[in-house]
Amino acid sequence: MIQTTPIEIVEVAPRDGFQSINEPIATGIKIQIIEALIAAGLTRIEFGSFVSPRAIPQMVDMIEIAQHFRTDTRARLAALVPNVRGAELALKNGVQEIVYVFSASEAHNLSNVGAPISQSIQGLADVCQAISGADIALRVDLATAFDCPFDGTVPMDAVLHALEHIAQLAPTSEIALCDTTGRANPFEVAERFQKVMTMEALSNNTWAFHGHDTYGMGIANAMAANRAGVAVIDTSAGGLGGCPFAPGATGNTATEDLVFAARGSNAGCAVDLAALLEVADRIAELPGTSMGGHLRTVPRGKLPLL
Amino acid sequence: MIQTTPIEIVEVAPRDGFQSINEPIATGIKIQIIEALIAAGLTRIEFGSFVSPRAIPQMVDMIEIAQHFRTDTRARLAALVPNVRGAELALKNGVQEIVYVFSASEAHNLSNVGAPISQSIQGLADVCQAISGADIALRVDLATAFDCPFDGTVPMDAVLHALEHIAQLAPTSEIALCDTTGRANPFEVAERFQKVMTMEALSNNTWAFHGHDTYGMGIANAMAANRAGVAVIDTSAGGLGGCPFAPGATGNTATEDLVFAARGSNAGCAVDLAALLEVADRIAELPGTSMGGHLRTVPRGKLPLL
Repeated sequence: MIQTTPIEIVEVAPRDGFQSINEPIATGIKIQIIEALIAAGLTRIEFGSFVSPRAIPQMVDMIEIAQHFRTDTRARLAALVPNVRGAELALKNGVQEIVYVFSASEAHNLSNVGAPISQSIQGLADVCQAISGADIALRVDLATAFDCPFDGTVPMDAVLHALEHIAQLAPTSEIALCDTTGRANPFEVAERFQKVMTMEALSNNTWAFHGHDTYGMGIANAMAANRAGVAVIDTSAGGLGGCPFAPGATGNTATEDLVFAARGSNAGCAVDLAALLEVADRIAELPGTSMGGHLRTVPRGKLPLL
Repeated sequence: MIQTTPIEIVEVAPRDGFQSINEPIATGIKIQIIEALIAAGLTRIEFGSFVSPRAIPQMVDMIEIAQHFRTDTRARLAALVPNVRGAELALKNGVQEIVYVFSASEAHNLSNVGAPISQSIQGLADVCQAISGADIALRVDLATAFDCPFDGTVPMDAVLHALEHIAQLAPTSEIALCDTTGRANPFEVAERFQKVMTMEALSNNTWAFHGHDTYGMGIANAMAANRAGVAVIDTSAGGLGGCPFAPGATGNTATEDLVFAARGSNAGCAVDLAALLEVADRIAELPGTSMGGHLRTVPRGKLPLL
């Protein structure tokens, strides 16, 4: 058996997925789905964003959900925070991890968070100060780390520029290189991770990959990242969601596809595929969903290990 | 840039794809599509099977197609042959390469070619004798080299048993390990190729991978094979086709998805993606087709390099 890096999935359906659904989902349903994801064996879950409900109405019940899972030790629940106000809400409500997002490409950062990159870097500094000394993990998502919906291929220099600032401000954070459009290919994913993972300035950071399956590269890119030594991979049950501000970037890589890809290998994680598919089916039944992924399209009887 | 093995695509839509279409395709249309695939830059094409038209009616015009491409030097055209009669027809009609298929699993061999593996191995011996001394290449496709639609995971010993015979009978042939069901995962693909590619008895054989995307593993598995050093990868324009005798095994990996995956890398091949997508669209317009792949589902304006 090939030695490799065990995969640790970050399930993003409740954040990246639910925000793509216009129909309001009842708080109780959200909690039930997160509970079911945890029961299926997922140990890291992005459960939402502490943003203004005016920006993303689906996130109106963040505090209630955070409080429900406040003392939970089965899984590490993370929330996106766009600013200090979000970080303070996360701290106050006992969230275990916050995720701060900005882009390597100026055009996408302007579109996604409405600010130039320099302002987002200042925002990261402010968030780091706000959580300084607190018992909360920090992850930084670097969007458009490969390709930008507006500018195409993002130069590696732009990625390195962003990473320099992250290394200075958050030297022990987990950093996710995000393929926001899904247009990265496995060679680029391997190459960029190999480059950054050997840089001295980033030697105390850990790494994650967030990809999309829009162009069919989702699993191949996740495997390329894993092969380069990346343990943490973001996926979404049922392939739900995408970036609403990146045109054409529908389709997160499906969690069940990744679990299937790694099954039986040293990289495989202890997720119950049958239970996971049940949650994905349940998510698919919510009004207004747009699902992705492959495994749910195959008759259940054809799936091994079920 | 990461050093890797340049990919050589074998386009199988005219064989593995067209045989999945019940509606007869006019010979002139088939030739036009093969011409367009060659014009798009594909240098190896499986154009059909010298089988009885009673078994696969779509293959009724094999001789006419073979004769059309008889003197063609732009691409290497290959035909499947189930037996000596097929090999003789291929030789007589100037085909450059024949492909002989049998399975590593007994149940699939019985279902696919109606004979036990031992009889198929004798058939390979007969075919080798029939082409002995002739200027024709031989490839052996080992079906169910990972997973069988009837028996599940195929033991590596069964694969090695088949390979021993291939090594003895056809010591310089190209051997394709075929993921007939699409249920292999990238770790298994890498592991099996790494094993067989270092075996002394097989050191004069060359290697190919034939996969399906049914479970979403198509590109990831192709990348895993390529990473293990496999140059030759089978794909089908538009993801057309599958094995009609392997229940649930629809969906060859799409050629355009693989070209997209390797673009800009050292493994990339000189295929014109825009021209290829036009051929795939044309195939999709044929009556009775069932297409697959990802790139054709994305609005064309969102595709880079077009």
